[in-house]
Amino acid sequence: MGRSKRRPTVVRVAQNIYDDPRFFDRYAELDRSRRGLDGAPEWPSLRALLPPIAGSRVLDLGSGYGWFARWAATNGAAEVRGIELSERMLDRARADTPAALPVEFVQADLETLDTLDTVTNAGGVAGYDLVYSSLTLHYVAALDELLAAVHRLLVPGAAFVFSTEHPVLTGATTPRFIGGDHGPAWPLDRYCDEGPVVVDWLGAGVVKHHRTIATYLRGLRHAGLELIDLVEWSPSAAQVADEPSWEVERRRPYFLLVSARRP
Amino acid sequence: MGRSKRRPTVVRVAQNIYDDPRFFDRYAELDRSRRGLDGAPEWPSLRALLPPIAGSRVLDLGSGYGWFARWAATNGAAEVRGIELSERMLDRARADTPAALPVEFVQADLETLDTLDTVTNAGGVAGYDLVYSSLTLHYVAALDELLAAVHRLLVPGAAFVFSTEHPVLTGATTPRFIGGDHGPAWPLDRYCDEGPVVVDWLGAGVVKHHRTIATYLRGLRHAGLELIDLVEWSPSAAQVADEPSWEVERRRPYFLLVSARRP
Repeated sequence: MGRSKRRPTVVRVAQNIYDDPRFFDRYAELDRSRRGLDGAPEWPSLRALLPPIAGSRVLDLGSGYGWFARWAATNGAAEVRGIELSERMLDRARADTPAALPVEFVQADLETLDTLDTVTNAGGVAGYDLVYSSLTLHYVAALDELLAAVHRLLVPGAAFVFSTEHPVLTGATTPRFIGGDHGPAWPLDRYCDEGPVVVDWLGAGVVKHHRTIATYLRGLRHAGLELIDLVEWSPSAAQVADEPSWEVERRRPYFLLVSARRP
Repeated sequence: MGRSKRRPTVVRVAQNIYDDPRFFDRYAELDRSRRGLDGAPEWPSLRALLPPIAGSRVLDLGSGYGWFARWAATNGAAEVRGIELSERMLDRARADTPAALPVEFVQADLETLDTLDTVTNAGGVAGYDLVYSSLTLHYVAALDELLAAVHRLLVPGAAFVFSTEHPVLTGATTPRFIGGDHGPAWPLDRYCDEGPVVVDWLGAGVVKHHRTIATYLRGLRHAGLELIDLVEWSPSAAQVADEPSWEVERRRPYFLLVSARRP
């Protein structure tokens, strides 16, 4: 009964931009698509938030090409399940994953929690030691329901580690630097007004859900999850030295990285 | 020995801008100076983070005119101690506080923790049920040392509630809206570079310490304090309806309000 009260009364249909062939082709050209975790500059910071992987049962929400799932399995995870909505992503993830790795990819929509519970429990997995999600939660409308599911799926003491775009990105109607009095300035102009926003990305209108940091933290707490660490990521001084064009990226944070645990 | 290792090796001298007569006069004209808590639009949100006040021992770090100290005493606090550096502020606070209230104001510098421990323990108070600080921490350079002192001064289970300017304020070199593609835009241009910044306020160059939200949260955790709630304050829709000129204030958050506890 508690669960049925939490279910949304409006049927949500997740956007599936990644199954748009033109978008998919452009996404495939990104550094993080071609090179995987090594092409994602925030990966070292996100990895630092992870618990020990060896022997653990891992659930990856929005597993994409499967880079993280394969990394976890290669680093000793006992079992990894990737949840992904896009069939194109799933095809590519399955094709790129050696059969010997204990990885399974399952199609499911993170907006519909009954499905999530079903697919994640079908294999006999009672609970996970780590739920991971990279750059997916800003696409999810039903965040509170998803966080409640994360809590159900974790064993006590287990970790939830996720990244999203930092809220200052969706807090700018036009997410591009403009000329300020002191060089490029990031034009915050709607930070406090939360909700869906349409952002032009790789030539497509992508719906993201703008939420403040406060809302993410409150969502965790209401789901019964305890904050461990929060990183407002921008390139480090060392990364800027390697890639001088990234200097501007330190003018505002780019990713929000969070680790939490089920007590 | 543990304590002496935590002491800064550089002697810090706190700025005392509030004892500059011209600055003090201008500060006295602000709505929050004339009307107290009722003139501070974030007060209802900050009050909502407070634990029950009746019977509690309260320490106010940066007590200013004493508005909060008097509010706490009037609402049943057993004992309230306000710590303030500015003599002008202390004079005014003492003059405005009826002798019947259990309130004491003490001059001390929040940058020098030995002093803080001494003055807060001199009256025989072993610990506080609430440490409160309104719009003071962004002036403090030695934040980690101050948070460690807060932990020492609280009894187990007790609360630490504070407000600061939101880091997007000090994350803009010129903290004023500029013209963006969609109306006024807040020009974030140094959010990720922390440290002292000089801000022109009420005609004076005021030194504030820019820190990210992540740094405040990490500071709490390292001090052994547990986050309870975090609010990125801007005026509510109801406040904007009352005061239409505040609409622009929803384009970026203005205050950061935090409640934490000593476990």
